Amino acid sequence: MSQPLLPPPRGFPEAEFAARTDKAQAAMAAAGLDALLLTTDVELRYFAGFLTQFWQSPTRPWYMVMPKAGKPVAVIPAIGADCMARTWVDDIRTWSSPQPEDDGRTLLAETLKEIAGAAPHLGILKGRETYLRMPLADFEALQAALPGARFEDSTAIFRSLRGVKSPCEIEKIAFVCDAVSAAFEAAPRLFHAGQSDVEAFRAFKIECLTQGVDDVRYLVGAAGEGGYGDIISPPLGRELREGDVFILDTGCFYDGYYCDFDRNWALGRADEAALRAYRVCWQATEAGLAAARPGATAADLFVAMQNVLEAGGALGNDVGRLGHGLGMQLTEWPSNTAWDTTELRPGMVLTLEPGMTFAEGKVMVHEENIVVREDGAELLTRRAAAELPVI
Amino acid sequence: MSQPLLPPPRGFPEAEFAARTDKAQAAMAAAGLDALLLTTDVELRYFAGFLTQFWQSPTRPWYMVMPKAGKPVAVIPAIGADCMARTWVDDIRTWSSPQPEDDGRTLLAETLKEIAGAAPHLGILKGRETYLRMPLADFEALQAALPGARFEDSTAIFRSLRGVKSPCEIEKIAFVCDAVSAAFEAAPRLFHAGQSDVEAFRAFKIECLTQGVDDVRYLVGAAGEGGYGDIISPPLGRELREGDVFILDTGCFYDGYYCDFDRNWALGRADEAALRAYRVCWQATEAGLAAARPGATAADLFVAMQNVLEAGGALGNDVGRLGHGLGMQLTEWPSNTAWDTTELRPGMVLTLEPGMTFAEGKVMVHEENIVVREDGAELLTRRAAAELPVI
Repeated sequence: MSQPLLPPPRGFPEAEFAARTDKAQAAMAAAGLDALLLTTDVELRYFAGFLTQFWQSPTRPWYMVMPKAGKPVAVIPAIGADCMARTWVDDIRTWSSPQPEDDGRTLLAETLKEIAGAAPHLGILKGRETYLRMPLADFEALQAALPGARFEDSTAIFRSLRGVKSPCEIEKIAFVCDAVSAAFEAAPRLFHAGQSDVEAFRAFKIECLTQGVDDVRYLVGAAGEGGYGDIISPPLGRELREGDVFILDTGCFYDGYYCDFDRNWALGRADEAALRAYRVCWQATEAGLAAARPGATAADLFVAMQNVLEAGGALGNDVGRLGHGLGMQLTEWPSNTAWDTTELRPGMVLTLEPGMTFAEGKVMVHEENIVVREDGAELLTRRAAAELPVI
Repeated sequence: MSQPLLPPPRGFPEAEFAARTDKAQAAMAAAGLDALLLTTDVELRYFAGFLTQFWQSPTRPWYMVMPKAGKPVAVIPAIGADCMARTWVDDIRTWSSPQPEDDGRTLLAETLKEIAGAAPHLGILKGRETYLRMPLADFEALQAALPGARFEDSTAIFRSLRGVKSPCEIEKIAFVCDAVSAAFEAAPRLFHAGQSDVEAFRAFKIECLTQGVDDVRYLVGAAGEGGYGDIISPPLGRELREGDVFILDTGCFYDGYYCDFDRNWALGRADEAALRAYRVCWQATEAGLAAARPGATAADLFVAMQNVLEAGGALGNDVGRLGHGLGMQLTEWPSNTAWDTTELRPGMVLTLEPGMTFAEGKVMVHEENIVVREDGAELLTRRAAAELPVI
């Protein structure tokens, strides 16, 4: 086993938020935007470092306005004022929320008018993998309150900013990947035939926390005789049995950043079909690792892995892609698919996730996390065993 | 300590989903709606029992269409077909997602036309505490693809269905409340002066999992000399110290249902102001418990608790309400505020959350979870100690 990484410092130096803001404002100028209206957890975390699990509560909307110059302006419920005051944001406007009729909407409209003028071009997220976190009726009312405003899609700006990770960001992702690698290495101690899958999931969550992650935000998995059929389900209350192939796929979280990878095991014994499918996916990952160099595209990664999977007898793949970007969200762009021509650049963090159906109702999925460096892929996860581990 | 509750069976009998669907369809008929378009985790869980943490990934949209009669129809990425097939839903339409241009939108439009006609009245969530989980550009394109359709706000229907919980739902909430009560009772073993708050949070998360919750989805808290100032923050990397008042507020999750309550402790010693504020909030909760009877309103709960807080010297409250509904989401309607006249009915599950600023920058917040019964409030949480516990 490797020497575990130590947890990096929490938060970011203020310069990191200033740099993100500068880049956003340059992109806004190029796009002719007067302000960005930000409504989601990931936007407020990215530009302000506003980190709270309070987003779990759907009750209150949270807004931030990015002006053409200067720091972003927060327009938030009073309950968050103290938490926001610990960020680099100075201009914090609050209202007592919840309210039955006007839950911050008028304060937001006034702030937008003050910052961006009466007929502004406003950027909001409208594109793939985004949602507006604002009641739709409130958004309609905001549009009515700003009749001269145009709401334009600024998804491309947000993507271009976040695609390449900073050294501080990579350090956080590397830590959570390493801590979860250690948790996966504990599998022989954690899992056994006769254990309910509910208890296996629970044991793994506790192990991840013990290894230093902040939260086990995402844990899915499955087990089945000779193979599993589904990789997005919670435990089903079924016992792990001798002869099962068992997968866990987890997105743990450390200080705002995710890992996203899986591991497979056989319980007691493994049949030849599962052993073979495992080897094919492992080799496909090797091909992905070799292909992940600056200048290659996400589509190149797909082709490199898919060729190995097809040569290895893949009968298809319901996942729809062979990996994706990773960072502040469990899944980010690009997608490792035939159609995604995003060019890899140093500092991009990606998953390589080759998977295949290898028999009727049986799939095998592998996953590793990497950062693209000048000279190629650097693994952030401790590489899975080359042969299906039997425990 | 009480005898712990045993975990109730997972899932629901199919009759539960059939009853929910029947009620939704009756409300749709009354509102003149031809179909509901469902886009969020909580909607798909409520009507289909589709439970997966895969919603953490923002990449793929998930849709369901509720027709005028019959079971809901799923329009989902192929990766979810296996998981959806385990629900009571029969008609599952899938596409390979992600896609760059048409990520399920055309399949959704065709399904809506087939089910609801060419010029349908469609219900979607637009109201308070709701969001459309569909990229806004896709929603605009869907509107363009269905030029005769009207998209009307169906928030009231969803609220009316979910306000009163079924016995099976209450059993799940009661279990998670009890398991977390047991975890809070372990506080003297878990927390101590000199411990970093990061480690205190971690120890509590592990304790909750050990007590049987599925996930610690929400854990916030704070500690400060003689009192804390903020109740929505993650740990700040500060050491717990003698003389601190320490609060943890958690929303743990069991089989799709949340608890949401907090506990306070003093470390080593407590000063008179904190002891007094604690007593005031405890008494305010008593007043809330006495007021929570069928026929009373959420506003009545607010008034009952607020009177005690004001008489006890409250200097204000940034939370904006004194509790709220609870169930499939960490926070649901109603809000215990002066303006919310929602009438309490047997089977409603609520938090009572009196809180107050008792000195500059110092707040005290209590919280318990209850179910409204014919004869009044039944506690789902084990009642907090009447005096601030010193550990």
